[in-house]
Amino acid sequence: MSDTIIPHARLTEAGARAIVRGAAAKAAEIGQPQCIAVVDDGGHLIVFMRMDGAFALSTDTAIAKAVTAAIYRSPTGEIAEGVDLRLAIATQGKRINLPGGLPIIVDGKCIGGVGIGSGTGEQDRICANAGLAMLEGAQTF
Amino acid sequence: MSDTIIPHARLTEAGARAIVRGAAAKAAEIGQPQCIAVVDDGGHLIVFMRMDGAFALSTDTAIAKAVTAAIYRSPTGEIAEGVDLRLAIATQGKRINLPGGLPIIVDGKCIGGVGIGSGTGEQDRICANAGLAMLEGAQTF
Amino acid sequence: MSDTIIPHARLTEAGARAIVRGAAAKAAEIGQPQCIAVVDDGGHLIVFMRMDGAFALSTDTAIAKAVTAAIYRSPTGEIAEGVDLRLAIATQGKRINLPGGLPIIVDGKCIGGVGIGSGTGEQDRICANAGLAMLEGAQTF
Amino acid sequence: MSDTIIPHARLTEAGARAIVRGAAAKAAEIGQPQCIAVVDDGGHLIVFMRMDGAFALSTDTAIAKAVTAAIYRSPTGEIAEGVDLRLAIATQGKRINLPGGLPIIVDGKCIGGVGIGSGTGEQDRICANAGLAMLEGAQTF
Repeated sequence: MSDTIIPHARLTEAGARAIVRGAAAKAAEIGQPQCIAVVDDGGHLIVFMRMDGAFALSTDTAIAKAVTAAIYRSPTGEIAEGVDLRLAIATQGKRINLPGGLPIIVDGKCIGGVGIGSGTGEQDRICANAGLAMLEGAQTF
Repeated sequence: MSDTIIPHARLTEAGARAIVRGAAAKAAEIGQPQCIAVVDDGGHLIVFMRMDGAFALSTDTAIAKAVTAAIYRSPTGEIAEGVDLRLAIATQGKRINLPGGLPIIVDGKCIGGVGIGSGTGEQDRICANAGLAMLEGAQTF
Repeated sequence: MSDTIIPHARLTEAGARAIVRGAAAKAAEIGQPQCIAVVDDGGHLIVFMRMDGAFALSTDTAIAKAVTAAIYRSPTGEIAEGVDLRLAIATQGKRINLPGGLPIIVDGKCIGGVGIGSGTGEQDRICANAGLAMLEGAQTF
Repeated sequence: MSDTIIPHARLTEAGARAIVRGAAAKAAEIGQPQCIAVVDDGGHLIVFMRMDGAFALSTDTAIAKAVTAAIYRSPTGEIAEGVDLRLAIATQGKRINLPGGLPIIVDGKCIGGVGIGSGTGEQDRICANAGLAMLEGAQTF
């Protein structure tokens, strides 16, 4: 393979569903119904689930967290205050700064992101991590 | 109960997942990977799944079909040509006229919509119907 | 590697630049300055070039053609009339039906898209093809 | 020439490419892959390049910085805090306040802007400046 094309990996629907299952199990355990989104490395949705009792508008935040984590390849919610609003404006609201989004990194390659919304930032982060723990070889945070 | 509030029903996550399972099984059977969306009667997403090989932008069409079917309580794709564009413009593109969206109607009450995208209109419709068949008491089309 | 992650490939900046060079050489040869866009398989821009004399708004069409070709993994401009407008509405204008967008397919994998705008549809298509011819192993149309 | 029309200058594709080359060389030197955008004095994109490893959403910020610098004819990121958000709102998010955008000024005339994104603000600014240094007669900052 030349330098014009390099090997990469792709998260499957089965992989995305495993992450959602893990996050939902943790959400049930802590008693906080969640919106759970998994996107590929281009930020496109693969699987989404809104648990009974989760907030309908948290669909948007869960997806946005997943996209931000996937594209920037790092956990969301760690940008300095002030800068975050400027970055959100410059990306038309696509780069958000709320905890609960984690990149899906396997073998050093970022292949997507998981985003959780409806709970507190800490609850969201815990559920995202529980989702990642279901994917063999995925880094947790 | 007074005349100011009337009984209604709500589709659960478990119900939405059953519909997705049914639609995905039919998609696998006909060999056409699909984007599958289920929304509640407010048009808010409950469950979404993009099967391996389905188109990333069909996420948008699948969700839009589900929303249109849920809100107008009837199958999508049956609006007269010409009128459909006027309705799309008037709803900021939210009322769309592509086959593959079906309302979820149980006991005469519309409790949501299912939308499918990536195949032909007929393939999408068939998968949506197979999804509805998984929900006890739901009308099929 | 399990069924949760599958091997894929990624187009590099060097590969995208080769495509742009090929398209620009053909544009110069036929005397039609062009806007030339190359996106990855998630529809994200890698390289863009507007040649002197090309139209500034064709930036938008070139990118949109590249995105549509990349996401749907097939040449643009082949959707039946009438259906195309409905699909454009349902995707908020992201799925367009103008010739001049071609998928970048290597070893059977779609790793992106090239889109050309400013000339006639046929001129745009010819330049896109000339771009693809610069990438070793890429399918031409 | 009457007082109704005055002489101006226009940045060419070759000029824009020189700026991109200079910025990319600096990015490689400091080990920070970047998104690099050059726009004309109307804020329209001429050349864009996303280096391997740069962030896909930084495409948006790089272009937005270039546009802001070109239109306001001064470096980005120097607006007082608080005022910046009001200006962003009033311009529908088009005037942004992140460092890394520089105007392209030759012979006292602003003929465009360069915008860089993916690194820290200081890294972005350095690369933008390195790009300008490639354009004969262009002011650096």
